[in-house]
Amino acid sequence: MPKSNEIEARWWGWGDINKTYEVEKRPTYVPFIEEKLDVEVEHVRTPDPDMSELELRESRLQSDAIDALKKIVGEDNVSTTRRDRVMHAIGRSYRDCLLARMGQIKHPPDAVIFPGSEDEVVELLKLAEDRSLAVTPFCGGSSVVGGVEPLDIEGFAGTLSVDLRRMDKVLRVDVESRTARIQAGIWGPELEDELAKFKVYLGHAPESFLYSGLGGWIASRGAGRQSTSYGKIEEMIESVRIVTPRGVIETRDVPASATGPDLDRIFCGSEGTLGIITEATMKVHPLPQAYDYRGQLFKTFEGGVQAVREILQHGLFPETIRISDDEESSMAMRVRRPSSNPTKEQAMQSALKGLSRLGWSFETGAFAILGCEGKKVDVAVRMKRMQAICRKNGAMPLGKGAGMEWFETRYDNPYLRDIMFGWGVMTDTLETATTWDNIMPLYHAVKKSIRGALADYDSRSMVTCHLSHSYVTGSSLYFIFLGKIAMGREIEQWEHVKRTAGDTILANGGTITHHHGVGYEHAPWFEREYGPQGMELLRGMKKALDPAGIMNPGKLGL
Amino acid sequence: MPKSNEIEARWWGWGDINKTYEVEKRPTYVPFIEEKLDVEVEHVRTPDPDMSELELRESRLQSDAIDALKKIVGEDNVSTTRRDRVMHAIGRSYRDCLLARMGQIKHPPDAVIFPGSEDEVVELLKLAEDRSLAVTPFCGGSSVVGGVEPLDIEGFAGTLSVDLRRMDKVLRVDVESRTARIQAGIWGPELEDELAKFKVYLGHAPESFLYSGLGGWIASRGAGRQSTSYGKIEEMIESVRIVTPRGVIETRDVPASATGPDLDRIFCGSEGTLGIITEATMKVHPLPQAYDYRGQLFKTFEGGVQAVREILQHGLFPETIRISDDEESSMAMRVRRPSSNPTKEQAMQSALKGLSRLGWSFETGAFAILGCEGKKVDVAVRMKRMQAICRKNGAMPLGKGAGMEWFETRYDNPYLRDIMFGWGVMTDTLETATTWDNIMPLYHAVKKSIRGALADYDSRSMVTCHLSHSYVTGSSLYFIFLGKIAMGREIEQWEHVKRTAGDTILANGGTITHHHGVGYEHAPWFEREYGPQGMELLRGMKKALDPAGIMNPGKLGL
Repeated sequence: MPKSNEIEARWWGWGDINKTYEVEKRPTYVPFIEEKLDVEVEHVRTPDPDMSELELRESRLQSDAIDALKKIVGEDNVSTTRRDRVMHAIGRSYRDCLLARMGQIKHPPDAVIFPGSEDEVVELLKLAEDRSLAVTPFCGGSSVVGGVEPLDIEGFAGTLSVDLRRMDKVLRVDVESRTARIQAGIWGPELEDELAKFKVYLGHAPESFLYSGLGGWIASRGAGRQSTSYGKIEEMIESVRIVTPRGVIETRDVPASATGPDLDRIFCGSEGTLGIITEATMKVHPLPQAYDYRGQLFKTFEGGVQAVREILQHGLFPETIRISDDEESSMAMRVRRPSSNPTKEQAMQSALKGLSRLGWSFETGAFAILGCEGKKVDVAVRMKRMQAICRKNGAMPLGKGAGMEWFETRYDNPYLRDIMFGWGVMTDTLETATTWDNIMPLYHAVKKSIRGALADYDSRSMVTCHLSHSYVTGSSLYFIFLGKIAMGREIEQWEHVKRTAGDTILANGGTITHHHGVGYEHAPWFEREYGPQGMELLRGMKKALDPAGIMNPGKLGL
Repeated sequence: MPKSNEIEARWWGWGDINKTYEVEKRPTYVPFIEEKLDVEVEHVRTPDPDMSELELRESRLQSDAIDALKKIVGEDNVSTTRRDRVMHAIGRSYRDCLLARMGQIKHPPDAVIFPGSEDEVVELLKLAEDRSLAVTPFCGGSSVVGGVEPLDIEGFAGTLSVDLRRMDKVLRVDVESRTARIQAGIWGPELEDELAKFKVYLGHAPESFLYSGLGGWIASRGAGRQSTSYGKIEEMIESVRIVTPRGVIETRDVPASATGPDLDRIFCGSEGTLGIITEATMKVHPLPQAYDYRGQLFKTFEGGVQAVREILQHGLFPETIRISDDEESSMAMRVRRPSSNPTKEQAMQSALKGLSRLGWSFETGAFAILGCEGKKVDVAVRMKRMQAICRKNGAMPLGKGAGMEWFETRYDNPYLRDIMFGWGVMTDTLETATTWDNIMPLYHAVKKSIRGALADYDSRSMVTCHLSHSYVTGSSLYFIFLGKIAMGREIEQWEHVKRTAGDTILANGGTITHHHGVGYEHAPWFEREYGPQGMELLRGMKKALDPAGIMNPGKLGL
């Protein structure tokens, strides 16, 4: 089987070029979108953009620079090919994909470097500093905030994208301490495969899992689907190793410490602006014996939110707990792929009708997924207690079928965005977090603001929301919005929505990002959230480790 | 009842001057110490040192500076009295108390300031910067690493100790989100009293609980007795507010975020070197309905360590789990206060003899405390599961009596140190943390090194150890050592032990401190652990927020 980073990736959109979202097999989705957004969907795939037709700026590196780079990492590990430069030019935000489809790849790196060791990374940064080359670390490239785009910043002779994929070993597993030392360049699927050999796993599965890796997860402070139990990536770190332009920093493999400001938490979230993370010791868990994912349907979103809060505050930490609002629940039902067995499907539909008459509806209620993993007994006990809390808050259990349907298709949704581009439909996501007392007010404020912003561009809208990473004190809020693309004003329209939503989030007590990170797309709000003194602090850190400013310039407002 | 900071505190030792450790009521302790350390203990209290006899440097502040300070905080809130200056001159490390008893108070602040609001703190820092006054924040003053000592650093016209005790309000409690907004100057007992009005509590109870406060806990990255469940202080923080010489930084009250390096974790552990923490939003818990603390006696320390690891790795998180090695277990038994009921005491002693014949002995085994708090049912379930794991690893349950005895006397031990000073016995503590695979090797290495270092000064030694803050991936190790004070070479002897132990910890994979912090006593090892680039980073942060370097100079190696 090829490695996950050996697939042919779609350069203008999501994932594997040989995979897509089979919208034809979901007969209720297109009419739903047509009605909701007032668009006419043509069942014709727009042709895939042709990479060879792109107008791509030539690499600005002279041959002596290329030779010097090759001397460090080897002949084969410096690339200036069109494909490599395009694949490292953008992340996978709506804006990235929109511009790519328009043929605008604005900032291709002048070269893509594939170092094979930390020593090579050290040498690379020295060379980059000597020759005024900006360095953007790359580990999967699925950033949705512009984190991996090698921006053109004045004063640099060129840009390098440093792709860590060759540094992809699990170096050791300490089963007794439940930790694993791992190189930063390994991607999700291979990491879990390697760890499984020791019967352990990390439990970090962001939506980008198939096309992202450890270094990127740490640098961008991400969260996986099971973060409610296993924590965000920062909580999984036991220690890190990072190469900065001023040398290597390694923290100690200890479970806790009181030695000054926590370096692990400084590098986590540094987004390549301080250095390149090369290794980390991560906390790992025994491979689960049992998985139990179940659907629940709440009469109201408020009831579901209340149930999530109660579950967490009762000290139950399901690996996954997601609750969708009414708009998202109805969309989930419309985008569903019906069972291939017509009798079964009919039975389900009539069951749903029956439920609806009793007050549980996907149109007005809230669909939820409860997922537990671990030892059989423990999974059963937790699931039972959680279901009781759900029932108390107005939920109807939908069983394991609904849960597994979600689980099995959990990495598919990003493909749908590419399909909808072809329909003239924009779809993007936003996320934030807040304390429980502010969940519903922030929810309403953000939905309203996105609707208004889309209306400003004469678009009807769908704005859905779910809670998917929850805590004792609060939760994330994740929004998906759909609207009609304003042809000719595409970027302007997106920027308007993004700006409106970001302003609303900050004005209403949220954080500009719970797990997507900052990159440059979130930078303006990040700077407000961090505050002028916080930014001074950040600049002070950068100056200390990267005085020439070569590390991922233009990100985190730096 | 007076507030905890209104007691008359012992200036040369621990706590309330009206409290002491009633060693007379512990008849087996003195003979034990005499035998183990080859000392002769005279049952005569050494006279308390007299503050009025101290040679204390005069305040170097001119009257115009005093007037300017008074203008900011009010006439009554600037003190240059002997008592206030002495009480803010040192922490409570062995070294501090040793020097105080010798009449050496080397660095009394030139004034002690008691601001009443954040605005006053802002003004204070401006004034301090203008007049080149060094500022040491003070919140309880129980530091055992020199964190609150206003060192004389060249280039400053004087030193201020800024005591936050007037900023001691619980500003709001959000029961729904389980958070509380609290001013930094509140001390442990008042904080818990205030929170109890809302039926919540913080669950942070370090040994210094009675004489320390929120700002100090955060600044020094401490841990409380129930950290195994509630976490170290850094894990309890939802957001902080800090006044730096360059202005105020406030983080958002959100449960999680991906906005760059985590500012909360930068200020936690900053030990006053970046600014003065004025407020924090902390995670709180419902007041426990039930408490269950029990003793266990393991046949071996290794068996106990194994049980602790298994308990944590089974996902059981007792609020308290402590396991003492053989030396500490035997000391615990000798320092015990016998029951006032002779029949009961006799029954216990003969029960212990019976146990000893069966292989469970306080001389060779390991005494452990398991403590659970919370809802009744949950406490019962956890306790049952934990006891089963203990039994499997060779433990004999000793029941709730032993547990409650520990619980009720948990804040008393520091008083014993002062008594033993009078006997010519040094006693100090050291702590570290490491992963499970390294617990026993590090344990043996540190014990051996301390023994050797004490032998170098012709002292027999007792070196005891316990695990008291445990994690899925590892645990803290806490050492208490006793030896004969080398008269005339007291400081040299202590420095030798400290240096030897610190070097051993770093050479064997530990961290120089798990929860005591760095101050200046740990600074040499901190700098090695952080590394030269880490120190550059720290200096970069400091330069950004405190360019004149007025904040707690000399701490954290800055």
